[in-house]
This record gives sequence, structure tokens and C-alpha cells, in this order.
Amino acid sequence: MKAFTDYLWFETKRKKEIVHITPQVRDLVSRSGIQEGFCLVSAMHITSSIFVNDLESGLHQDILDWLEKVAPENPNYHHHQTGEDNGDAHLKRILCGHQCMIPITRGELDLGPWEQVFYGEWDGTRRKRVIVKVLGT
Amino acid sequence: MKAFTDYLWFETKRKKEIVHITPQVRDLVSRSGIQEGFCLVSAMHITSSIFVNDLESGLHQDILDWLEKVAPENPNYHHHQTGEDNGDAHLKRILCGHQCMIPITRGELDLGPWEQVFYGEWDGTRRKRVIVKVLGT
Amino acid sequence: MKAFTDYLWFETKRKKEIVHITPQVRDLVSRSGIQEGFCLVSAMHITSSIFVNDLESGLHQDILDWLEKVAPENPNYHHHQTGEDNGDAHLKRILCGHQCMIPITRGELDLGPWEQVFYGEWDGTRRKRVIVKVLGT
Repeated sequence: MKAFTDYLWFETKRKKEIVHITPQVRDLVSRSGIQEGFCLVSAMHITSSIFVNDLESGLHQDILDWLEKVAPENPNYHHHQTGEDNGDAHLKRILCGHQCMIPITRGELDLGPWEQVFYGEWDGTRRKRVIVKVLGT
Repeated sequence: MKAFTDYLWFETKRKKEIVHITPQVRDLVSRSGIQEGFCLVSAMHITSSIFVNDLESGLHQDILDWLEKVAPENPNYHHHQTGEDNGDAHLKRILCGHQCMIPITRGELDLGPWEQVFYGEWDGTRRKRVIVKVLGT
Repeated sequence: MKAFTDYLWFETKRKKEIVHITPQVRDLVSRSGIQEGFCLVSAMHITSSIFVNDLESGLHQDILDWLEKVAPENPNYHHHQTGEDNGDAHLKRILCGHQCMIPITRGELDLGPWEQVFYGEWDGTRRKRVIVKVLGT
């Protein structure tokens, strides 16, 4: 059994942004040399998400609008009594999920025809990290 | 370490439908011969979910009603400018989750007493695929 | 490859409660002796969650308020025709997620600086179980 671990760094220009990361994940899996296994992609900051969906800019706007509707910015979160202002971003991470597991088959990401991997930034403009860990043979 | 990969196909009669798949997953884990490990069950189409909850038809109706309330059908999604009409199904996949990992202990699915595995179809009446991948010893 | 399996038990005093479990998970990973791998933490009861977020009591109140807003208690759930009264708790499990996978690197939980692991109880005051399963080398 082999294990391979690396980290991706992000610093988005906007507070909320969806970043396509399939190419970086694919590159790391290729470098791992693992043919059969699982690749965990997990956001290490608690105001970010990882999710697998469509690479289509209109849908990305729909996702941003929807997250804002269901887990809106609001000055009155209890969390803000600590001096923070990002309560909504913590909830958006829960709503959208913070990690996914990608199956690796014959050395490739075993994704469906339209599945792509995304980093969701809900409180950006600062450096944040994502772990990519591959386990297998 | 052993790896076992197979795929389940679904073509639901209704647009939205919840399908109980624990028996199929259990059968594949049994065929894998793996005694200790993890079984990933992941929807490969971006308008479907996999989730673990109760096998109770009333609850399934509640889940369908709730998904429709929180991530409703709406002609005005930006995604629809591409000619699609399933923006809500992409959001329902995010809300309900698209994969789960089932622990395998002594060759069995190590689920709680009421846990069952479900395929959630949010844009059906066409052929769609789910990967089942088992890793372990 | 090694596998290690154990279970945590919870019986909360309140119906809804968020319990910090990083120390227990860390202890089990340490006892597993596994240096490189994945640790699955998964709620085995279908009205509970596992999630990774901030250890901050104000935020926890925000999470409880938000779950109640998005997946509210309601006497009219179809599920209640079976005699149950916890339909909301099943939906809260879906909304908040029921499991997470923690990467293990050099024998430690490879979490971000603020990431902590939580058990979310949405229908408590009775004994419930969480599986912790570690796979790796």
C-alpha cells in the first residue's frame, strides 16, 4: 500500500468564488503513481468547500445565489460576538460539504462524464489550504 | 491490499425518485472478498445523490418535499441559458450529498441498525451510473 | 495494510446538542498505530451528524438555529404517521452530513488549524453510536 500527500493553496480575489481544480487533482494523482485507490480532497479551512459538480459558469452563479439564499450573510450571528464576520461562510461550508473522495481506477480519476472537482471559497482574499491525499496500490 | 470496482446502472420511471440500493452494495462487497476496508458509493451523474438514512416511505416523501422546498425547480436558473432545465437537480445533489463511504468490518457493511443506502434521482428517466469501489484486505 | 475499528457512544442530556469529539478520535488514531491512512468517523444512527468545523460556542448556536430554520420541527411530516416524531432530525442529518474522512499523516490527524470534529445530536437523550475506522499503514 502506498500513501501520497500534498496540499493546494488558494488566495481568491473575491470573497466568494468557485475554482475548478480537477487538473491539479489529476496531476497529483498521476504523481502519486497509485493505480487503484481513493483520493481525498478536503478543505482545511472551515469557511471553504470541496464539491463535485458541473463545469458551467451559469450553474456556478446559481450555486452562489442559492448558498446566499439558504445560508445568508447576517450581522447577527452569535459567532460575530468573537469579532468575526464570517458566520455565513461556516454555514455555507456545511451546506455545500467540505470534502470529497475520488475513486482512482487504472491510474485515473474515475469520475462520471460531467463530474469536475471544485474548491468553493466563502470567505476569501486570503491564503487557504486544501489537502489531497491518495491511498492505494 | 485489494481493490474491487463495479458500477450500478439506474433508469428511474419518475423524474425524482429514491431507490433503496443496500442489497446491491452488500452483494458487491461480498463479491469483493474484502474483510476490512472502505466501500465508496458515489453518484457519477451530477444530478443524483447517494445518502444513508431510513427505509421508510413516509420519510422518503418528506425528503422529496424538503429538497423541493430548499432547492426548488425554477425556470430562471442561469444554468438554463445553456438549454438545460435541471438547475434544481444540481442543487439537490449538493444539498443531499453525492457519495458515502461505508465501513466494511469482518466482511460485512458496518452500518447502524437503521442505516440503509439510497440512490437519489433528481433528474431521471434516463440511464445513469453509480460507482461502487471497495479498498481493503 | 492495517485496519482498526472502534465505536464511540453518546447519550446527550438535550434533544439537540453539538459534542466536540476531536480528542476521542485522536486517541483512537493513536491507538491504531497507523501512520499514513484515512480515518472514517460516521454516525450510525440516522438522526445524528458528524461534521468538521470551528470549536466556538457562538457558532454552534448559529448552527443549531440554522438547522432549525432550514429543516424545522414540524408535526406534519409523513414520517410521523409511523408513530415517530423526529422527521426533522432525519433531514438535519442530511443537511449537516453524517460522516467525515480525516487524513492521517505521520500518525497525526492532518486537520487545518481550526478544524475540529463534532458529533451533532438531533434527537438525543438516548444511547447512540459512532464508528471510527482507520485504514492505512
